[in-house]
Amino acid sequence: MPHASYKRLEEWFRRISALTDAGAILQWDLATMMPKGGARGRADQLAVLKALRHSLLCSLEVAQLLDAAGADVSLDDWQRANLEEMRRAHVLASAVGQPEVEALSRASSACEAAWRDARAESDFSIVRPSLEALVPLVRATAEARAKALGLDPYDALLEEYEPGGRAAEIDPIFARLGEALPPLLTAVLERQAEAGPPPEFRGPFPIEAQRRLAVQFMERLGFDFHHGRLDVSLHPFCGGTPDDVRITTRYDEQDFRPALMGVLHETGHALYERGLPREWRGLPVADARGMVLHESQSLLIEMQVCRSRAFLAFAAPLIRATFGGSGPAWEAEALYRHYARVEPGLIRVNADEVTYPAHVILRYRLEKALLAGTLKVADLPGAWAEGMRDLLGITPPDDRSGCLQDIHWYDGAFGYFPTYTLGAIAAAQLFDAACRAEPGLTEGIAAGEFAPLITWLRTHVHSQGSSKSTREILIAATGRPLDAEAFVTHLERRYLG
Amino acid sequence: MPHASYKRLEEWFRRISALTDAGAILQWDLATMMPKGGARGRADQLAVLKALRHSLLCSLEVAQLLDAAGADVSLDDWQRANLEEMRRAHVLASAVGQPEVEALSRASSACEAAWRDARAESDFSIVRPSLEALVPLVRATAEARAKALGLDPYDALLEEYEPGGRAAEIDPIFARLGEALPPLLTAVLERQAEAGPPPEFRGPFPIEAQRRLAVQFMERLGFDFHHGRLDVSLHPFCGGTPDDVRITTRYDEQDFRPALMGVLHETGHALYERGLPREWRGLPVADARGMVLHESQSLLIEMQVCRSRAFLAFAAPLIRATFGGSGPAWEAEALYRHYARVEPGLIRVNADEVTYPAHVILRYRLEKALLAGTLKVADLPGAWAEGMRDLLGITPPDDRSGCLQDIHWYDGAFGYFPTYTLGAIAAAQLFDAACRAEPGLTEGIAAGEFAPLITWLRTHVHSQGSSKSTREILIAATGRPLDAEAFVTHLERRYLG
Repeated sequence: MPHASYKRLEEWFRRISALTDAGAILQWDLATMMPKGGARGRADQLAVLKALRHSLLCSLEVAQLLDAAGADVSLDDWQRANLEEMRRAHVLASAVGQPEVEALSRASSACEAAWRDARAESDFSIVRPSLEALVPLVRATAEARAKALGLDPYDALLEEYEPGGRAAEIDPIFARLGEALPPLLTAVLERQAEAGPPPEFRGPFPIEAQRRLAVQFMERLGFDFHHGRLDVSLHPFCGGTPDDVRITTRYDEQDFRPALMGVLHETGHALYERGLPREWRGLPVADARGMVLHESQSLLIEMQVCRSRAFLAFAAPLIRATFGGSGPAWEAEALYRHYARVEPGLIRVNADEVTYPAHVILRYRLEKALLAGTLKVADLPGAWAEGMRDLLGITPPDDRSGCLQDIHWYDGAFGYFPTYTLGAIAAAQLFDAACRAEPGLTEGIAAGEFAPLITWLRTHVHSQGSSKSTREILIAATGRPLDAEAFVTHLERRYLG
Repeated sequence: MPHASYKRLEEWFRRISALTDAGAILQWDLATMMPKGGARGRADQLAVLKALRHSLLCSLEVAQLLDAAGADVSLDDWQRANLEEMRRAHVLASAVGQPEVEALSRASSACEAAWRDARAESDFSIVRPSLEALVPLVRATAEARAKALGLDPYDALLEEYEPGGRAAEIDPIFARLGEALPPLLTAVLERQAEAGPPPEFRGPFPIEAQRRLAVQFMERLGFDFHHGRLDVSLHPFCGGTPDDVRITTRYDEQDFRPALMGVLHETGHALYERGLPREWRGLPVADARGMVLHESQSLLIEMQVCRSRAFLAFAAPLIRATFGGSGPAWEAEALYRHYARVEPGLIRVNADEVTYPAHVILRYRLEKALLAGTLKVADLPGAWAEGMRDLLGITPPDDRSGCLQDIHWYDGAFGYFPTYTLGAIAAAQLFDAACRAEPGLTEGIAAGEFAPLITWLRTHVHSQGSSKSTREILIAATGRPLDAEAFVTHLERRYLG
């Protein structure tokens, strides 16, 4: 009875999904609610959930059921896609043996801890031995997965964050950005220098008022507080589950603008999670497709929509009403100029959308070289400084603002960085397609009407879940696979238009 | 290598404990933070954690390791106690087969849902069929456990909440209360009628101020916010884990007194959890001994300490300072009289400590009769009304204020009720012993010095974990097993002294 096998797999994967969801809520709690003294116990809880999830995923029973269900001709398209995602998850998890998984996990934890010290001291040499121990384990994982999946090692790592992602498709896109962005940046900086800085205002802006404003925009965009929350954490994120989406921000009493835009960014992630296909909840086919589309949804809301003149024309009066502000600094145009400020800097997370790709391209190059062994860990700080000089013309004065700034790598995450910029590019391509498909979209945004856009995203992206590949979803939604053209056009229009 | 078996068991049970702890945090989140739309997913998460925990506990590997470790002569006292607790948990969980566990779980969920409707409608007939389906399953569980443990069926149910609890020990204690309390209640009510009601004050009392005051007392009592939190939930509880203790309360803007005493009650639970033996964390021997000692710790703090004249003399000035109150209603004596108010009522959770035991004795009789089959579910409302008339001289006008008031039974919990009153009795006996052992304790409390009391409780109760039985802990701490004498003396002194 092949269909019985498929049904058994559904049950099995629903249990795995419940464990994943439990871990997501515990992770959210750790970042928002947990007293510091709970850290040790929480690490144990998360580790046990992860290990149980892994052993359920790799079990012999799953392997046998996958074989049996593969012969099931009665499956419809979504069931077949679901089965493929189950197989993918099983193969990915089974590619590496339990001892290797544990060794990598231990080395990552040790390296992450050393990185915290190293960053505090701004001294790469503190973390160097740990990273030297970690990189070969990551490489071994990449090679084991590459063998199981029939991929290049780097692509096998990408597969964890962006299923179907391939360096061969990333390279030409990043090459195009490498050509287009430097002259664009020069032109933007000249233009900005001519215009002078936008008018400034001064705080304080009470946190309760900032929160109220953020909630107002979240609701307007369609965030459903019956199925979600907004809280505070040191590093903003979107967590939880599709039926219980939890986004966070951090407030600065002296400037409401970063938290506001941060919340709008996370709201983009949240709308994606919430829009995943409800009838397939708890099954792999209902998961978010990957980090490229996830990041595209947050950046579409933040960069394409909320930093636009249209949105800020709608937002400015609400912002003024919230804080009781008046004068030129509170006009939509001043907010727009603030949010469109471009400035090459050393820190990725503070970068604007014109310079952000350079940060990613640097990391993409370096992580590939580290894994290939053509760059030694010991040479990382030098290679970093050289890359920053080449790409943005600035040199980090210390390790903290250089190769120690990001947690990735030190916690074992290689193959993650490209998804940020691929997401920005996908955001531009999707928004461009939405504007073509729905005339009057921009005018609607200026009037605070987001339903046509959100409905389009639900239909073409969110509700697709993992039923198709990122490439297929993009082709169906925009008429072509991912390329940098819409993104470059967007940057030219916004910053030089 | 028998010692290797013991060590393997420790690893195994640490994983089980991590799952339990994960569930505790998710349960806390459900009650305090979760948006309503997360309910369905959360139920799945908790069910999967529970099932995994159960299968780890019942596994053949555990059974084999328990056998091997049983022969290990190298174990010290605590290791041996730990092993016994592991065996107890394994036997208790294994006594009932997986299909029976699931049937009971499903019937409990269905009955609980029906109870919510029945209570809303105040109509027992709505839940009757579900309870009629549930009781035989509870009985079958009790019988299966009784067989595995060599106990009477009711004792086998007690075993889940109060290991070592026996009806044969409860009966004489409840009989003594049945004799002593009715004349005492009559005398107290006469005394109160003569004195008239205490002076009253009016709110509102801002919630933020109530919370600040509660936190002040919590800290004073030794609650460690580095390892715990105070939040809001509909039904106050103490949850979380020993290193991350989470208590809740609910605030009434018109009266600060219920929330304040509620927080102090939960703080008693929290101090117990926090004081469990740290070096054995994650192992059964470090678990709270049972519900009797747990309830004794909350009631010791609430009833013995915080409703006393000594404590309220210390508390009154802080309360006045918090709310800016003045006048007779704000004096310590008025607060004392408020908190010592006795009034027979229909609702257990609103009962004072003089009438509370009657509520418990009624439920104890009825649940034993339901399980023995001498009381039919259909006859429950009538038996309830009759019992209330006998015990407290009042008759519920409807099912809502009668047999539908508590969730217990309807969610499958039989054998739980007696622990409330046994806890109150143990609280009196322990506090009496502490006062004898530490002269000046009461004077210290009046000065806000709680360290001597908390240290005594840590030493004699908290840090014992489950290394001994409740009976052994009580004998070591107070010189005798549980009896009602200290409790009766306490009531006489407080209400007639």
